[in-house]
Amino acid sequence: MTEIAVPERGFPESEFVARAASAQAMMAERGLDALLVCTEPEVRYLTGFHTPFWQSPTRPWFVILPAEGRPVAVIPGIGASAMGTTWVTDIRTWPAPRPTDDGLALLVDTLAELTGGVDSTPTRIGLPMGHETHVRMPLADLDLLRDRIVPANFVDATDVVRGLRMVKSDREIAKVAHICDVVSGAFEGIGDLLSVGMTEREAFRAFRIDLLERGADDVPYLVGATGPGFDDIIKQPSDRVIESGDLLMFDTGSVFDGYSSDFDRYVAFGGADADAKRAYRTVWEATEAGLATAKPGATTSDLWRAMAEVLDAGGSLGNSVGRLGHGLGMQVTEWPSHTADDGTVLEEGMVLTLEPGLTWAPGRMMVHEENLVLRADGPELLSRRAPADLPII
Amino acid sequence: MTEIAVPERGFPESEFVARAASAQAMMAERGLDALLVCTEPEVRYLTGFHTPFWQSPTRPWFVILPAEGRPVAVIPGIGASAMGTTWVTDIRTWPAPRPTDDGLALLVDTLAELTGGVDSTPTRIGLPMGHETHVRMPLADLDLLRDRIVPANFVDATDVVRGLRMVKSDREIAKVAHICDVVSGAFEGIGDLLSVGMTEREAFRAFRIDLLERGADDVPYLVGATGPGFDDIIKQPSDRVIESGDLLMFDTGSVFDGYSSDFDRYVAFGGADADAKRAYRTVWEATEAGLATAKPGATTSDLWRAMAEVLDAGGSLGNSVGRLGHGLGMQVTEWPSHTADDGTVLEEGMVLTLEPGLTWAPGRMMVHEENLVLRADGPELLSRRAPADLPII
Repeated sequence: MTEIAVPERGFPESEFVARAASAQAMMAERGLDALLVCTEPEVRYLTGFHTPFWQSPTRPWFVILPAEGRPVAVIPGIGASAMGTTWVTDIRTWPAPRPTDDGLALLVDTLAELTGGVDSTPTRIGLPMGHETHVRMPLADLDLLRDRIVPANFVDATDVVRGLRMVKSDREIAKVAHICDVVSGAFEGIGDLLSVGMTEREAFRAFRIDLLERGADDVPYLVGATGPGFDDIIKQPSDRVIESGDLLMFDTGSVFDGYSSDFDRYVAFGGADADAKRAYRTVWEATEAGLATAKPGATTSDLWRAMAEVLDAGGSLGNSVGRLGHGLGMQVTEWPSHTADDGTVLEEGMVLTLEPGLTWAPGRMMVHEENLVLRADGPELLSRRAPADLPII
Repeated sequence: MTEIAVPERGFPESEFVARAASAQAMMAERGLDALLVCTEPEVRYLTGFHTPFWQSPTRPWFVILPAEGRPVAVIPGIGASAMGTTWVTDIRTWPAPRPTDDGLALLVDTLAELTGGVDSTPTRIGLPMGHETHVRMPLADLDLLRDRIVPANFVDATDVVRGLRMVKSDREIAKVAHICDVVSGAFEGIGDLLSVGMTEREAFRAFRIDLLERGADDVPYLVGATGPGFDDIIKQPSDRVIESGDLLMFDTGSVFDGYSSDFDRYVAFGGADADAKRAYRTVWEATEAGLATAKPGATTSDLWRAMAEVLDAGGSLGNSVGRLGHGLGMQVTEWPSHTADDGTVLEEGMVLTLEPGLTWAPGRMMVHEENLVLRADGPELLSRRAPADLPII
């Protein structure tokens, strides 16, 4: 196995200083006195707090970025030690879980303190409320929070977190590049790993272990399917036995240091029919068209159009995915979306997937996905480009 | 490696029929015309829809259980094929992502249709709003939803989903039992797997791969620490090299067929000091006290008291976890919580953790955790009981 240079773990404090400064500049433009976030990627982005403990639904977590200075954490006591290792110095805890007041009073007091308390100017607190966001706290508590903050003035701050996270730093890009390198290697080795006669479940297990052995920290997202064709592309494995002539798709969001890959590959066992090969070639060509279009100043809708034209010309019967690619970073999918009307202007430093898909026969879908970072002069692939023709293993 | 009998995958339709009937009986008692859920465990519980695709934050997903009949899915098109393999027959999709209307109009129409539309009686739609829940959709859309449902009458249905999920069926218990068996084996083999000189990161990777090889489908939750003592018990690995005399803790929520373990173990490398050994013994004895108390009719607060008395007598300096155990099932933590005032009455079929923890010296915490199912006559351990004394490897 090739020895891969592993990027440095974590981020220096300067990265968080820069993130906070960018956020605060955007907040100043919008007249926001504070930004309140409560979901894992946003909390991690602003603080560096990194733990899988978010899988426990029991406790809410809050981070407030004031108009100036470092973020302030309002979190369950169990997180104080871990948060104490980040650049955050003002850490306020309550003994969660405490359903009668699970951090609400502490949050209200902290928000009031950080936004200047009661004066004649209504406070404006940014909270992400838009597309791809949700508020991770009980709705009853959220309603209480919106009653108690007087003068209540929560405003949507989706564009702030979206704007921050959509363009990646060099250190973020290096982490995505590393996991894409690891996953590329695993896909390239798939012919040695899998064979006819294995069950889907055995194939998934072997691939997951291989990814870990090659350097993935974890493989939180792994979906796939086998058969002469399939249209469920978010599937978990079954006991189906792989047969000669089958297609196999794996799509994985593997992670390194909290940053994700998101690309897929198709292979065929022993052989494939002409229609499958043609469908493969069409989505491969659609990806080429996307790559040729991906430049700063173009839009996500330009990407969509470039790929959709190739898919249509290739006889696509449709695509249930709803978009032809998206952003990528701490999460397996992030803003923006390549759709007909998304229209996000591409910028240098964006990490994107190209994900053209088509249905070549009823119930038979073919999807390709590559990962790239947008440079000044165009795309730099982070995944190693799939072969132009359907690989037969 | 011992060959373990693997429980059947998935659930027969009768399981979902029973779940819906239980839910609808609770809904009738509360005068609810429908139950709306939008988070992964609730959707999976009612439908069987099982995919890691929920890691993508882009699209909301909705399931409505009417007063009678099967649940109705209102979901992004990408999920239609997978949802079509469940017992759900009424699947309504929209081409998500579509930020201008990401399923909202379809959801409003479906809710109106399923609750009888406009008549003189206000509609009552149950939505979980309480502890351990959140609404997984953009807040702006949630506010629109609450404006558009006329007569608007969303009522908190936390107790419905909590009541349903807290008591497990035999098939659910078999899945948790299986993953606990797998993880018990991995912990018992840890002396052959890990050694002084490895880094934490190497130890995590080896343990994760070992769990997969033993039959875990995935290891979504793995935290741990090494050193003479530590108080961050939700930690990710560092490059710290394990030394002789170190303690090691691993805590894992590994999964089988969508059901989780949640227990930890401590070991010492080469030897341990008397204080660490005493702390270990104290939390082990506290677990014994919890096991002796765990019977139908007792409460979570009885469990808490039984364990807390042993911890206090053992000289505990405190515990930042906030509770001494909790429910377990599809999620690594579920209702209820063993706290001083939780007071949930224990019932046969509940799957619980006992998780006593103490601080034996500043910055040094010791936590034990075991998993059990409550039977008519008391607890049946699902994890194999930790040794009574700190294992030295």
